[in-house]
Amino acid sequence: MQHRGQEGAGIAAISGNTIICHKDHGLVSEALGSALNKLKSHVAVGHCLYSNNGNNTGENIQPVFTEYLTGRLATVHDGNLINAKELKDELMKYGIAFTGTSDSEVISKLIAYHCTKKKNVLDGVKISAELLKGAFSLIVLSTDNNRLIAARDSSGFRPLCIGKNKNGIAVASESCALDTCGFDFVRNIKPGEIIVIENGEIIYEEVVLTPKIKNTGSCIFEYVYFARPDSFIDNLSVYEARVNSGRILAKENPVEADVVCGIPDSALEAAIGYSEESGIKLLPGLIRNRYLGRSFIYPTQEQRENIVKLKFNAIKSNIEGKRIILVDDSIVRGTSTKIIVNMMKNAGAKEVHLRISSPPVKYVCNYGIDTRSEEDLIASRMSVSEIRDIIGSDSLGYISIDGLKEACARCSLPLCANCFNR
Amino acid sequence: MQHRGQEGAGIAAISGNTIICHKDHGLVSEALGSALNKLKSHVAVGHCLYSNNGNNTGENIQPVFTEYLTGRLATVHDGNLINAKELKDELMKYGIAFTGTSDSEVISKLIAYHCTKKKNVLDGVKISAELLKGAFSLIVLSTDNNRLIAARDSSGFRPLCIGKNKNGIAVASESCALDTCGFDFVRNIKPGEIIVIENGEIIYEEVVLTPKIKNTGSCIFEYVYFARPDSFIDNLSVYEARVNSGRILAKENPVEADVVCGIPDSALEAAIGYSEESGIKLLPGLIRNRYLGRSFIYPTQEQRENIVKLKFNAIKSNIEGKRIILVDDSIVRGTSTKIIVNMMKNAGAKEVHLRISSPPVKYVCNYGIDTRSEEDLIASRMSVSEIRDIIGSDSLGYISIDGLKEACARCSLPLCANCFNR
Amino acid sequence: MQHRGQEGAGIAAISGNTIICHKDHGLVSEALGSALNKLKSHVAVGHCLYSNNGNNTGENIQPVFTEYLTGRLATVHDGNLINAKELKDELMKYGIAFTGTSDSEVISKLIAYHCTKKKNVLDGVKISAELLKGAFSLIVLSTDNNRLIAARDSSGFRPLCIGKNKNGIAVASESCALDTCGFDFVRNIKPGEIIVIENGEIIYEEVVLTPKIKNTGSCIFEYVYFARPDSFIDNLSVYEARVNSGRILAKENPVEADVVCGIPDSALEAAIGYSEESGIKLLPGLIRNRYLGRSFIYPTQEQRENIVKLKFNAIKSNIEGKRIILVDDSIVRGTSTKIIVNMMKNAGAKEVHLRISSPPVKYVCNYGIDTRSEEDLIASRMSVSEIRDIIGSDSLGYISIDGLKEACARCSLPLCANCFNR
Amino acid sequence: MQHRGQEGAGIAAISGNTIICHKDHGLVSEALGSALNKLKSHVAVGHCLYSNNGNNTGENIQPVFTEYLTGRLATVHDGNLINAKELKDELMKYGIAFTGTSDSEVISKLIAYHCTKKKNVLDGVKISAELLKGAFSLIVLSTDNNRLIAARDSSGFRPLCIGKNKNGIAVASESCALDTCGFDFVRNIKPGEIIVIENGEIIYEEVVLTPKIKNTGSCIFEYVYFARPDSFIDNLSVYEARVNSGRILAKENPVEADVVCGIPDSALEAAIGYSEESGIKLLPGLIRNRYLGRSFIYPTQEQRENIVKLKFNAIKSNIEGKRIILVDDSIVRGTSTKIIVNMMKNAGAKEVHLRISSPPVKYVCNYGIDTRSEEDLIASRMSVSEIRDIIGSDSLGYISIDGLKEACARCSLPLCANCFNR
Repeated sequence: MQHRGQEGAGIAAISGNTIICHKDHGLVSEALGSALNKLKSHVAVGHCLYSNNGNNTGENIQPVFTEYLTGRLATVHDGNLINAKELKDELMKYGIAFTGTSDSEVISKLIAYHCTKKKNVLDGVKISAELLKGAFSLIVLSTDNNRLIAARDSSGFRPLCIGKNKNGIAVASESCALDTCGFDFVRNIKPGEIIVIENGEIIYEEVVLTPKIKNTGSCIFEYVYFARPDSFIDNLSVYEARVNSGRILAKENPVEADVVCGIPDSALEAAIGYSEESGIKLLPGLIRNRYLGRSFIYPTQEQRENIVKLKFNAIKSNIEGKRIILVDDSIVRGTSTKIIVNMMKNAGAKEVHLRISSPPVKYVCNYGIDTRSEEDLIASRMSVSEIRDIIGSDSLGYISIDGLKEACARCSLPLCANCFNR
Repeated sequence: MQHRGQEGAGIAAISGNTIICHKDHGLVSEALGSALNKLKSHVAVGHCLYSNNGNNTGENIQPVFTEYLTGRLATVHDGNLINAKELKDELMKYGIAFTGTSDSEVISKLIAYHCTKKKNVLDGVKISAELLKGAFSLIVLSTDNNRLIAARDSSGFRPLCIGKNKNGIAVASESCALDTCGFDFVRNIKPGEIIVIENGEIIYEEVVLTPKIKNTGSCIFEYVYFARPDSFIDNLSVYEARVNSGRILAKENPVEADVVCGIPDSALEAAIGYSEESGIKLLPGLIRNRYLGRSFIYPTQEQRENIVKLKFNAIKSNIEGKRIILVDDSIVRGTSTKIIVNMMKNAGAKEVHLRISSPPVKYVCNYGIDTRSEEDLIASRMSVSEIRDIIGSDSLGYISIDGLKEACARCSLPLCANCFNR
Repeated sequence: MQHRGQEGAGIAAISGNTIICHKDHGLVSEALGSALNKLKSHVAVGHCLYSNNGNNTGENIQPVFTEYLTGRLATVHDGNLINAKELKDELMKYGIAFTGTSDSEVISKLIAYHCTKKKNVLDGVKISAELLKGAFSLIVLSTDNNRLIAARDSSGFRPLCIGKNKNGIAVASESCALDTCGFDFVRNIKPGEIIVIENGEIIYEEVVLTPKIKNTGSCIFEYVYFARPDSFIDNLSVYEARVNSGRILAKENPVEADVVCGIPDSALEAAIGYSEESGIKLLPGLIRNRYLGRSFIYPTQEQRENIVKLKFNAIKSNIEGKRIILVDDSIVRGTSTKIIVNMMKNAGAKEVHLRISSPPVKYVCNYGIDTRSEEDLIASRMSVSEIRDIIGSDSLGYISIDGLKEACARCSLPLCANCFNR
Repeated sequence: MQHRGQEGAGIAAISGNTIICHKDHGLVSEALGSALNKLKSHVAVGHCLYSNNGNNTGENIQPVFTEYLTGRLATVHDGNLINAKELKDELMKYGIAFTGTSDSEVISKLIAYHCTKKKNVLDGVKISAELLKGAFSLIVLSTDNNRLIAARDSSGFRPLCIGKNKNGIAVASESCALDTCGFDFVRNIKPGEIIVIENGEIIYEEVVLTPKIKNTGSCIFEYVYFARPDSFIDNLSVYEARVNSGRILAKENPVEADVVCGIPDSALEAAIGYSEESGIKLLPGLIRNRYLGRSFIYPTQEQRENIVKLKFNAIKSNIEGKRIILVDDSIVRGTSTKIIVNMMKNAGAKEVHLRISSPPVKYVCNYGIDTRSEEDLIASRMSVSEIRDIIGSDSLGYISIDGLKEACARCSLPLCANCFNR
C-alpha cells in the first residue's frame, strides 16, 4: 500500500523469542528491498510512512520497537491523535522519557506502560486504546504468544480489514493489499473493535472502545482521493463511490459540452460517472508523466510551478475546438488546477468547465489527511465564483455535501465530512 | 522524455569555448538533479539511456564528449547501428583505440575522425552519417560556432522533430517534449536530412543521406507502444494511431461481450477504439500500482512473477460475472499476459477475450526496439491458437499487419514493420 | 579523541530552549563533518563510540537525547556498567520501555526518571549516579539553565578532567583534547565527584558518590595502551608511564642484544625506556602502513592474517644480522605478535627477544577495556614459556604487576589492575 | 603503495581473452574492496592515483583500458610528461579524439596507435615510450600473449623495480610493495629499459630508450619525503638516506640544545641521524593524530589552519624548559611549520632550532612531485633568515644540496635535484 505513504517503510517480525525490525527512508523497494529477501518469520507487521513532519532522522518511521518488563512489542498505526500531548505529559509524570515528537512513540510507550501495569498484553492494549483520542488503525506485534493485536478507533476514521487464506490471517488498511497478497477478504474491523490473532486464527474479537468524538465516522476523503479505487472500505467500493460521485456531480452541475476529461489518476472514475450521467463522451484529455522523481530539488517558485507542466500534457486532438468538462477530485490550493485549465485552453479548448467531485475543502483535518493549514485552503478564503475567476475556468461546479454522502451511501459506517462542514 | 529510457541520463552544454558534460545512472532526477540547477548555457543537448547492455560502468551513458584537432563535440543518438563493428574495425585500422562497446562511442569517434580530416564539422558529420547503416536520430553539439547539428537516418526509423519559440530552436525525438518545454512544433526532420542550428536559427537544412535499407521507414512500434500518446510522429498522432488500431482490431476480431478493458497504460487508447467501434462499454478493469521501484531485486523466478501481481489488481465490480474483452498492445513473452488473464478470471470474469492491437511479433528488431532474442518471442514459436491455449484466454485475436498499417495511414513516411513480417 | 572510539560519533548542543543532536556511524569527519560546520551553540557535548556491539542500527551512538516532564537532556558516558540489567529491570517495573540494549539508554532513562521524581536535574543526576555500579565518566547536557553536569564513578576507572580558557570551561576524558582545543588543564575530576557548569563557570563541585567496588581505581590499561601518550591522567603523564615501564621492563628482563625496536605506535615509548635503561641502541624496526581502511572486508581467515603483513614491514638495514629486543605493550590473542616476530626473522634478525610492557592479561575487563572473552586471552590459557614457543621468539619477558605499578607510581589514584590479577 | 596516491585506485586483469577493469575514487579499500575479492586472474596491474587535478568524473583514474585493432591494453604510469600536449596534438592530426586532459589518456592512445601501426605490442610500446618526454614508470597489460610490459624513462625519475617468487614476477614502484606481497627483490629497472613478462618469466629486457633530458636522474625528493622508509630505490635504502641526511644536517648546522625532535612521520629518520651525529638526545616531541579524515570539509582559512592543531600535539614533558632542535624534511609553504614551532614554544620550549633535511625548495617540479606553483614556495620568494623570522624559530638551518647528494651517495643513478637548483 505504497500509495498511503512514501516517506519511509519498515517491517517487524517475530524471530525466536524477540522481534527484529528493519526500517529506512524512502519507498518500500528502497527501504526494505534487501531486508525483505532475508526475512523469515510467521508473524510480522509492516508500515509505510505518509509524512515525517520534516524530521529527517528517521525516528518517526514505524514499526516502533519497545522492550518492557515481560516482553517485546512492535507497533504501527495510521491516523492522527488529538490528545497526543496530554498522553505524553501524563506518561512523563511517571518518569517516562521521550526521544521524539511522533504519535507513534506516544502510542508505543503508552501500550508498554499499561502492558507492564496490567501484566497482560491484551489488557494493556485495551486500556491504552481507550485512552487514545483521535484516529487510529493500530496493529501491535507482541512476543507474548507471538500475537498480533489490531484495534480501530471508535469513530472508524481510518480503514482496517481482515483477510484469510490457507496460510493464516492478514490485517490491512485497504482490501487491495489482501487481493495482491492472495488473501480473501473476510470483513472490516468495526469501529472500537479489538481483535487478537494467534497461530493464524482470530482468538478474540470484541467492540470494546467507547465512542468519543461526535459527528465523525469513516473518512469520506478516503473515497474521494486517498484510497486505491480497487479497494472496498467499510463495504463500499472506492471505485463505485467515485463513479457515483461523478454521476451526482453531473446531475447537480450540468453543462452543455462536447467532451468529459478526468485529470489522471484520481479523477478518472468520477469522469466516467459524469460521462455516463450526462451522456457526453469521455475522452482522455491529459497524459501524465509517470517518471517524475520525488528527489528533484526545485529552488525557485517558478520551477515548482513548472513541475505541473512536466507532469501533464494535453492530448490536443481530443481537446482542440471543443467544449471540455474537466473533472477533478478536489481543489486544495488551486495552483495546479489553474495551470491545467490554462494547459487545456492552450491546447485549443473552446470552453473549460471545471467540475469537482468533492465539496469545497474548508477545514483542516485533525485525523490524518494532510491538507496543511487553513490558509492554504483556497475554499476557506474564497467563494466558488472567486475561485472560478482565479483558476480561469468558464464555469466551476462542486458536488454538494449531501451529494457526496449519497454517492457513498453504501458505506456501512457514518461518514466523517468535517473537512467540508463543521 | 524519460519514457524513452530510464537507465541513465546526461546533458552537455557549451560553456565558454568548451563543453561541460554531466551524466550518471538512473532517472533524470537522480542523475542530473543537482547539475541541472547549476547549468547555465544557451546551447545544450541531453539524452536518456534506454539500455546499457549490462554494462555497469556508465561509459555508455550519453552525451559522448570528444576533443579533436580543432574543436570539441558532444554527441547523442537514438537507434541501433547494424554496421557498428565494421565502422569500429575501420577506425581501428587508423590506430584509433576504443574504451567500450557502444554504438555511441563508434559514432562519436567516427565524427571526430572525419571532422579532423574535413577540417569542418558539417562536412565531418555529413560524411560520417553517410557511413552509418541502421537507425539513428543524431544530434551533435559543436564548439565550432556553438552549432547543433541534427541528422536522421535515411529510413527515418526513429522520430526527430523541430520546435521553435521566441528563445530559439529545439530538436527532440517526440513532439511531447516540445509541448512540455514550451516550444511550438515546426516540422519533422526528414529521413536522410541534416540540419544545422546556429544562434537560435536553422542555417542549413538538406536531405543529403542516400537511402540504404529497403522496406524500412518510420518504426511502427513507436505508434504501438514506445512513444507517448500525446506525441505526433511524422504527422500522425500516436493517440489516434492507437485508437484507430483498436477500431480496426474490433472490426477484424469481433466478439460478443459485456465490457472492454484496456491493460494500463499502453493499451488504454486501443481499448477506447475497440469500444467505440464495437459499441461495447469501456470500463477500467485493472488498477496499476504506480510505486514499483526499479531497484527491487528479485532473486527467484517466483518472485519475478509475483511482480505482475503487485503491479496490477482487478476492479472486481467491473468484471464479476461479465464477458470481458481485454485489450493489450502486444504480446512479447506471454508470461505477464497469462497472469493478467488469470487475474481477470479470479475476479469473476465469465469470459476473457484477448485482443492485441499489434500483429504477432515474430522477429527481433535490429533498429533499436528491445524485444530480446527470437527465442523469447512467443509468436515466433507458436500459432495464435497455441498462444491462446497457453495464456488461457477464451479467444485471442491480433490486428492484421494491413490493419495496423491502415490505422497508421496518416503517417507521412513509409512504415517499418519488419518485426511482424520479413 | 578519535582514538577512544571509531565506530560512531555524535554531538548535542543547546539550541534555543531545546537540544539539537547529530550522530552517525564512522569517524567524526564522516559522521559529523557537515553538521559541525552548521552548528552554532554555547553549550554542547560530543562523543566517540568505541564499539557498538554488533548493533548496526546506530541506536547505541551517543549522545542520547531524552525529553522528560520538565526539560530535555543529552547524555554521554565512557565505561561499562556491571548492574545495567538490574537497573533496566527496575525501570521497566515502573512501566518504562526500552528500544535497545545499551548502557547509555539505561543511564539516560534512569536520569530522566529521577530528574522527573526529584524535579531537579542535579538531584536527578546525583541519585542516578549513586545507583550506577561500574565504570562511568558521564556528562549530561540539560536545558535546565543550559547546564553541563559531569560525574565520575567512585573508583575513577575512566579519566575525566577539566580545562579552562577565556571562553569557558571544557570537560574531557583526556587532557590531550584540552591542548588541541586551546584549553588550559585545570584539574582531574575526582572519583565520586559531580560538578556543574553554568554560564562558563563551575557552580558546584562535590565528592558525593559512595565508594562501591573494592580493589579498583584508575584503569592501568589506559597508561599501557588506551590513552594518548600526550595526555596526563590523574597527574601521571601517559608518556612517562610508558617510558618508565620500559625501563623497569629492562631491569626485570635484561638480555644481551644489539638493537631495541618498539612495535609502532603504542610500544614506541616503552622501547625508549628499555633502550635508556639497557644502554642498547633504539632503532625503528618496523614501518606501519597508515592507510589501511577500516572498511576492508576479509572473507577468509588467511586474508585476515594477511592484514598484519599489510600493516607492518621490517626496515631490513636495522635488523639484518642483529639480535633484536622487540618491545610490545601487550599480548592479547598472540596471533599478530607471532606474525611480527616471524617478519623480523625473515628480515634477517639473528635473535628476537620479545619484551612486553604490561603483565600477562589473564582476565576480561568488566569496566570498558574490550579484551573479548577469556578464551581469547592467550595468557589465561598458557604459561609464559608456552606463549614464547607458540610465538616463536627466542625469549619472552613481561613486566611484573608491581613493576608496572611502580612505573605508574605518580598516579594520584589507586590503580585498577584486575585484568592481570584477581 | 597507498602512500603514493590516495585519490583513486584501479586494477585491470586478464580475464579470458579480454581485460576486466575496476576503478573508483578513494583509497584502495574504498575503491576496490569488494572487486578485489571477486577477481581471479594470473596477470594484473593496479594503480593508486596521486592527484586527479580537480577532475571529479574519475576519468583520470588508472588503469586506462583500450581496445585497438588486434588486441586490448590496460596502461598505468607514474610521473609527469612534459610533452603531453604535443603528443596529443600529433595524435589528433590522425583523427584521434580525446575525452579528457590526463597524461594517461595520451599515453594509452599513443601506445594503441603505434601497436596498431607496428602490428606488435612490444614495438608499439617501444616507439611510444621513445616519444614520451618527461617522467614515467609505465606498465602495459596486453592481451597479446597476456604480457606485462614495463618501461622506465631514460632519466629514471620515478622508481620501478622487479620482484620474484615461486608464483611469478612482480613489478612495483617501491620495494616495500614486494616485501608486503611476499616477493623477493630482484633488481631495479634501468633508466630507458623496457622489460617484457610472459608466463611468469622475463622474456625481454633491454635498455632501448635514448637519454633525453640533461641534468636529471632518480628523483631526490623520493628519498626526502615521498617514498616509504622501508623501500630501497636504485640500491639506496630510503631509511638510510634520511638518517644520513640528518647526520650531515647536524654537521652543517650544529647548535647547542637539549633535545632533538622530529616531526612525525616523515622527519623521524633525519632526527635519528641528527641525534646520532650531534650526540644530543632524541625524544618524541609531538604526537600525531592518526584519525584525521580526508573527507573533512573546511570552509574557512581559520579552520584549515586549525587542522594542524588537530593533527599534532606536543609532549610537554619532553619539551618544557628545554632547547629543542626540531627536524623537518622540508618547508613548502611554511604555514604549518610556523604553527608547529609555535606549539613547541607554548609547550614551554626555551629555544626552537629548526633544521630541514632538504635544501630550500625553490622550483616547481615538472616530473611528478606536486609542490604547486612557485608562488606557493616560500623559499623561492625569501631568504633563509626571512623564513626564520616568519616561522618564528630561534634559528633555521637547511642541509646543503651537496650535503643531501652525499647522503644519497649510494644511489646507483645520477640524482635529479632540479627543485633546489637549476
